[in-house]
Amino acid sequence: MPSIGDVLPKSMHFDEPLALASGAVLRDYTLAYETYGTLNAARSNAVLVCHALNASHHVAGTYAGQDKSEGWWDNLIGPGKPLDTDRFFVIGVNNPGSCFGSTGPTSPNPDPAANGRTYGSDFPVITVEDWVDAQARLVSALGVTTLAAVIGGSLGGMQALDWSLRYPARLRQCIAIATAPNLSAQNIAFNEVARRAIVTDPEFFEGHYADHGAIPRRGLRVARMIGHITYLSDDAMEAKFGRDLQRAALGYSTQDIEFQIEAYLRHQGDKFSEYFDANTYLLITRALDYFDPARVHGGDLTATFAPARCRFQLVSFTTDWRFAPARSREIVKALVDNKLDVSYAEIAAPHGHDAFLLDDPRYHGVLRACFDRLAKELA
Amino acid sequence: MPSIGDVLPKSMHFDEPLALASGAVLRDYTLAYETYGTLNAARSNAVLVCHALNASHHVAGTYAGQDKSEGWWDNLIGPGKPLDTDRFFVIGVNNPGSCFGSTGPTSPNPDPAANGRTYGSDFPVITVEDWVDAQARLVSALGVTTLAAVIGGSLGGMQALDWSLRYPARLRQCIAIATAPNLSAQNIAFNEVARRAIVTDPEFFEGHYADHGAIPRRGLRVARMIGHITYLSDDAMEAKFGRDLQRAALGYSTQDIEFQIEAYLRHQGDKFSEYFDANTYLLITRALDYFDPARVHGGDLTATFAPARCRFQLVSFTTDWRFAPARSREIVKALVDNKLDVSYAEIAAPHGHDAFLLDDPRYHGVLRACFDRLAKELA
Repeated sequence: MPSIGDVLPKSMHFDEPLALASGAVLRDYTLAYETYGTLNAARSNAVLVCHALNASHHVAGTYAGQDKSEGWWDNLIGPGKPLDTDRFFVIGVNNPGSCFGSTGPTSPNPDPAANGRTYGSDFPVITVEDWVDAQARLVSALGVTTLAAVIGGSLGGMQALDWSLRYPARLRQCIAIATAPNLSAQNIAFNEVARRAIVTDPEFFEGHYADHGAIPRRGLRVARMIGHITYLSDDAMEAKFGRDLQRAALGYSTQDIEFQIEAYLRHQGDKFSEYFDANTYLLITRALDYFDPARVHGGDLTATFAPARCRFQLVSFTTDWRFAPARSREIVKALVDNKLDVSYAEIAAPHGHDAFLLDDPRYHGVLRACFDRLAKELA
Repeated sequence: MPSIGDVLPKSMHFDEPLALASGAVLRDYTLAYETYGTLNAARSNAVLVCHALNASHHVAGTYAGQDKSEGWWDNLIGPGKPLDTDRFFVIGVNNPGSCFGSTGPTSPNPDPAANGRTYGSDFPVITVEDWVDAQARLVSALGVTTLAAVIGGSLGGMQALDWSLRYPARLRQCIAIATAPNLSAQNIAFNEVARRAIVTDPEFFEGHYADHGAIPRRGLRVARMIGHITYLSDDAMEAKFGRDLQRAALGYSTQDIEFQIEAYLRHQGDKFSEYFDANTYLLITRALDYFDPARVHGGDLTATFAPARCRFQLVSFTTDWRFAPARSREIVKALVDNKLDVSYAEIAAPHGHDAFLLDDPRYHGVLRACFDRLAKELA
């Protein structure tokens, strides 16, 4: 299916301070965003797309300029696609703390003591709830009171869930894909190793590497390699790489690449370290760790979802061992306990956590049906 | 059950060069080893214990001196224990390339050009097959032609399997626990990330950190943290740590410890970096990667095990996702195809890969029965 075509990155500045969960305050901030499609007269057809760890507001289409990069969910969003931009007004937003245009660690620190330097590690710790608050302001500024839907996968799914809990009247449909009500100990463990790799890189300079003209690339590479292992299923890795050698014969070296899986991981690490900000990586993995709406309810997920009012679509993938189907089922149970309208699809897909970004026909079929139903209700 | 008590570390020097799989030659070398129990008159009751990644020849008992550390498999080996030292003569050996007394990267490099410096990264890449060859010489030097059994878990299990293939007449019983016929792509991937963390540590100095008075501790810490995640099951980690906080309230920090799992992992990493040699870590993870006896048989595991003659006991643990039961079953199938005498126990244990070091009664019961049968045959 054709892409939406050229799209334009936009940004909006907010002067009203954003009080964060940590107690810190972001005095003012900019959000980078994109929109696709047209807001209808009733202002009822807006869909907010929340991004996960390393993505951005550039959700669909390509840029007209030199950067021809395709939006990260272009296979899902566009004319005639499951999230059809001929019917919906789609909003992509870069979360504060990220590094793709919204205010974050790479932005100038407005504190006079910073003398115009970037925030670096002085950027406050930020949570899923803070992101959702910032998103809600953007949505309002775009003239939308009630969203047709909020959709996200992984960390993006956590944002969609948070919308349903803290802004229950502002969305008709929550679509949470390959997500969890909180991270498991193993999930936190992987995040922590990645963070340690970054902060112990001598080029990290306590998070003020920009002031030293440095980048903690070694740490970022290792962090990304760890991440990539958890995004793919064991089976998918086996099918794609197995024990295939990089060269015809073994080289008997501890440092040269012997197996193709090594080349793949190193490539992913190298690429990531060229474009992603290390402080952002720390902040976003921490936002993942902290997300746990049931904590204040003593872990009772049913009590947690009591305020929710919208309809829910949950999707999980059988080979996703990072956010396994069992974690989605916990959410589904809590929703059912609350007699909420919930659909749940457990997709047999071989690709692990990454599946939420791929265009498996059964998966996209579920989302198409969900958006078709919404479109009919709005017509 | 009481420990075997005080034991004495020994060492033996070998002047005969050891030709390695890589083509390199170890001109001469020392093996650190320990023995427990008494070799019988028929010299038929010897059991060789093979160690995994970070262990040593110190398998059972404690040292009389200042180092009171208990052998790593003391719960299994001793008087009256499943591997009963009143009945068997048990041999523990540190593999060459390791860092606990046998010749390895921390030993002086005999090459005159090295001017008495340690091998460091010039120590040749070494394989499971090389280790088994070195072990076979030690066993011969101890006066043993045929071992009653070779036993090992994880990488140690690979050594036990290799004994059965390349020295088929020299053992009655192979006991391979929580192991695999080769590493999966995911296994290799975890090893590779750990290695990258080490070799990109600026204190690594191309593997000659000893010459610089340095230790790549940051890399070793990250490597060990990754390893620990793979040793534990998701469930065990959840049961032990869950999302328990380190302090009463969240601190909102990307670098401070917030969750207890983080404290645990950092502690494991710190401890490991104090005693383990970085070059040894590289060599041993590579030996794991390389082990693949079926490669020369085009991946045909049944053809691979055709030379085997001994009896086999395989054990796996249901929650071991590093070397999952399915990997043990591949081996069992190949042994059955060859009409070999094989017993296989799949133990329902919550502890993941680490289970092979713990004293689960069903697991130890299987091993006790295996050794009882052996003892009766030898009587």
